[in-house]
Amino acid sequence: MKLGGDRETAGMRLSFSRHCVALIWSKRARARIFNESPQGCACIALRCRFMSLNPVQPPPTQDHKGIFTRLPFSEVTDKDLTFFKDLIPGRVVTDEDDLKSHNIDWLRTVRGHSKLLLRPKNTEEVSNILKYCNDRNLAVTPQGGNTGLVGGSVPVFDEIIISTALMDKVISFDQVSGSLVCQCGCILESLNQYLEGQGYIMPLDLGAKGSCHIGGNIATNAGGLRLLRYGSLRGTVLGLEAVLPNGTVLNCLNSLRKDNTGYDLKQLFIGSEGTLGLITAISILCPRKPSSVNVALLGCESFSKVLQVFTLCRDLLGEILSAFEFQDLESMNVVQTHLKLMNPLQESPFYILIETAGSSVQHDEEKLNVFLAKALESGLVNSGTVATDQSKIKVMEICI
Amino acid sequence: MKLGGDRETAGMRLSFSRHCVALIWSKRARARIFNESPQGCACIALRCRFMSLNPVQPPPTQDHKGIFTRLPFSEVTDKDLTFFKDLIPGRVVTDEDDLKSHNIDWLRTVRGHSKLLLRPKNTEEVSNILKYCNDRNLAVTPQGGNTGLVGGSVPVFDEIIISTALMDKVISFDQVSGSLVCQCGCILESLNQYLEGQGYIMPLDLGAKGSCHIGGNIATNAGGLRLLRYGSLRGTVLGLEAVLPNGTVLNCLNSLRKDNTGYDLKQLFIGSEGTLGLITAISILCPRKPSSVNVALLGCESFSKVLQVFTLCRDLLGEILSAFEFQDLESMNVVQTHLKLMNPLQESPFYILIETAGSSVQHDEEKLNVFLAKALESGLVNSGTVATDQSKIKVMEICI
Repeated sequence: MKLGGDRETAGMRLSFSRHCVALIWSKRARARIFNESPQGCACIALRCRFMSLNPVQPPPTQDHKGIFTRLPFSEVTDKDLTFFKDLIPGRVVTDEDDLKSHNIDWLRTVRGHSKLLLRPKNTEEVSNILKYCNDRNLAVTPQGGNTGLVGGSVPVFDEIIISTALMDKVISFDQVSGSLVCQCGCILESLNQYLEGQGYIMPLDLGAKGSCHIGGNIATNAGGLRLLRYGSLRGTVLGLEAVLPNGTVLNCLNSLRKDNTGYDLKQLFIGSEGTLGLITAISILCPRKPSSVNVALLGCESFSKVLQVFTLCRDLLGEILSAFEFQDLESMNVVQTHLKLMNPLQESPFYILIETAGSSVQHDEEKLNVFLAKALESGLVNSGTVATDQSKIKVMEICI
Repeated sequence: MKLGGDRETAGMRLSFSRHCVALIWSKRARARIFNESPQGCACIALRCRFMSLNPVQPPPTQDHKGIFTRLPFSEVTDKDLTFFKDLIPGRVVTDEDDLKSHNIDWLRTVRGHSKLLLRPKNTEEVSNILKYCNDRNLAVTPQGGNTGLVGGSVPVFDEIIISTALMDKVISFDQVSGSLVCQCGCILESLNQYLEGQGYIMPLDLGAKGSCHIGGNIATNAGGLRLLRYGSLRGTVLGLEAVLPNGTVLNCLNSLRKDNTGYDLKQLFIGSEGTLGLITAISILCPRKPSSVNVALLGCESFSKVLQVFTLCRDLLGEILSAFEFQDLESMNVVQTHLKLMNPLQESPFYILIETAGSSVQHDEEKLNVFLAKALESGLVNSGTVATDQSKIKVMEICI
């Protein structure tokens, strides 16, 4: 296998979109559209407002002349449909209305025109599908939750969509090591809920958690809110299984904390965005659920002070610091205008949201209070507020 | 470039030893030979005892018939020597006595017979050396601190040794992000000392720190004592630069916390043990130096209880837990016999060493005391002792 994969012989087309969309609101605010309320209602309002500014049906991506050229892949025939219906009966979608949402990205900026969506349940089915498509020279687009913001999860032309929605089983969880093994189509939030019942959490969290699939998270090397604390997927993913474009199953699905056997091939798939193969299962190291979570929102006069606050955080909050995010005044204004949320602080050029997560409520509050006092006394921040109550935490997170 | 590299056209030979040596003492005890005293003296005694059990000169590796066959690489000629002396004057070693220690591994179990050692100072020199060797079909062995225990850092036959000893410069350090950029030949302990002056530490620590090179650590994906807390090098290495076997310089040396541009090629080099190229520079994410470090040594009746203690640690010590290691009674006996150190605990089938590292002395002590009380009351441990004093910490670490 050549490094970088051979996209043509695999029958797998690049679905990268070259349309970069400037987000007009923070990622967290956007996330709430999926899975939070009552803020969810406000966020739905935001999305509706956004949609009113954008066409319901974006123009077909293929109409962007000079950017995309359909390579000489085959087209789906009745014989192909017969094959897929025999392979995965009841899970072959051809209805145009049913396919609409799968052909358009979440931001509604790009649109493919796939005529066929397949819903495999397991690795063997994915392998058979890809092998067939490879033999027939049919292009495919893997699709998880279709929550990506760069158009990478939808077809450009008429590629067959392979949805991971039905590959949503937890395979195993080791209570001692915290290693979770699951299929690629597990929704991130569902995994988190499952783990919380065991006293653990996922090492990543992001706005689209109510819809995104863990396979897609790994294929895009998603960062998210917990990256500062738990590191990137390159460190937390212990193993994965993927089906290569020709149908070969590559099994690197071990759960060893450190495995120096040979080259770490799984790392090529992390962040490969579906160009090397379809990730079908993963093994990931999960941290313990923290007993104590606090969030503070601070106002800052300059970006230089934002960096100094970050350094102070690392000194005084140290091991309990779990998130540090900032936004500027314009972003805050957007949140207030469109989400009708009140800024709990005085107007400032910059805002910082700090989250701590630890094993002792008392210790964490003491550390946070020492930090806040220092930050205010030194003039690094001009205002601040702390939330320990979950509902207030959610509101503050929306503001950022 | 084919995945896995083409070892023959690169002129780079596998130096993996297939001789697995069973360690008769713990890794930490062995480490003290390099860099600790007065325990260092005891450890030198241990090493001398070990050496008395092993021949001073191990038999040549090539004499292991049926295991290694010298492939048809060229031999070094006077013309080659002239080239290298012009390229890196004063840094070409051919004296047999000088070469002895470079031909033998640290455990003194395997021995090559290289006649030439080169000491480049920078990436350009490494590139020129490898290009030349590739063109001349000369085999090479990259060598860092030569502290590996699997014979991977010494020649099998007469490969040219490329030492990274002179590539020991720190290139830059970012005080805000904690990103360190340095050459491959920096000694791990030296880097740690440099960082401590800045309020940071290296994310890994291991017994050979007084001699091992960071390039070698990365090439072997070394784990070490801090892996539990800071994760593996796959997560902490942000970038690296390597010279490929044909002399091409592959520059992936960025310090972005998360970089999803293309495939993460650097991951192939991490753990590749010098088979794909010679790592010449690295960028690594360093954590803040903890203000408070505690070590506890506990006795346990069974391995099952060891696992339960681990779970309890994660519950009660949480974010301050930085190391959790165990050993059995036989290993403890070896330490006592050969290092003349007293076991501070009653005899137990298993011993656990726990290290905490945090930002608050008071909070960490409170957490540790709660944990110890719980561990004793519940019968998970039968005895324990805590060290907060650095010298006592070192002694306890030697025992494990």
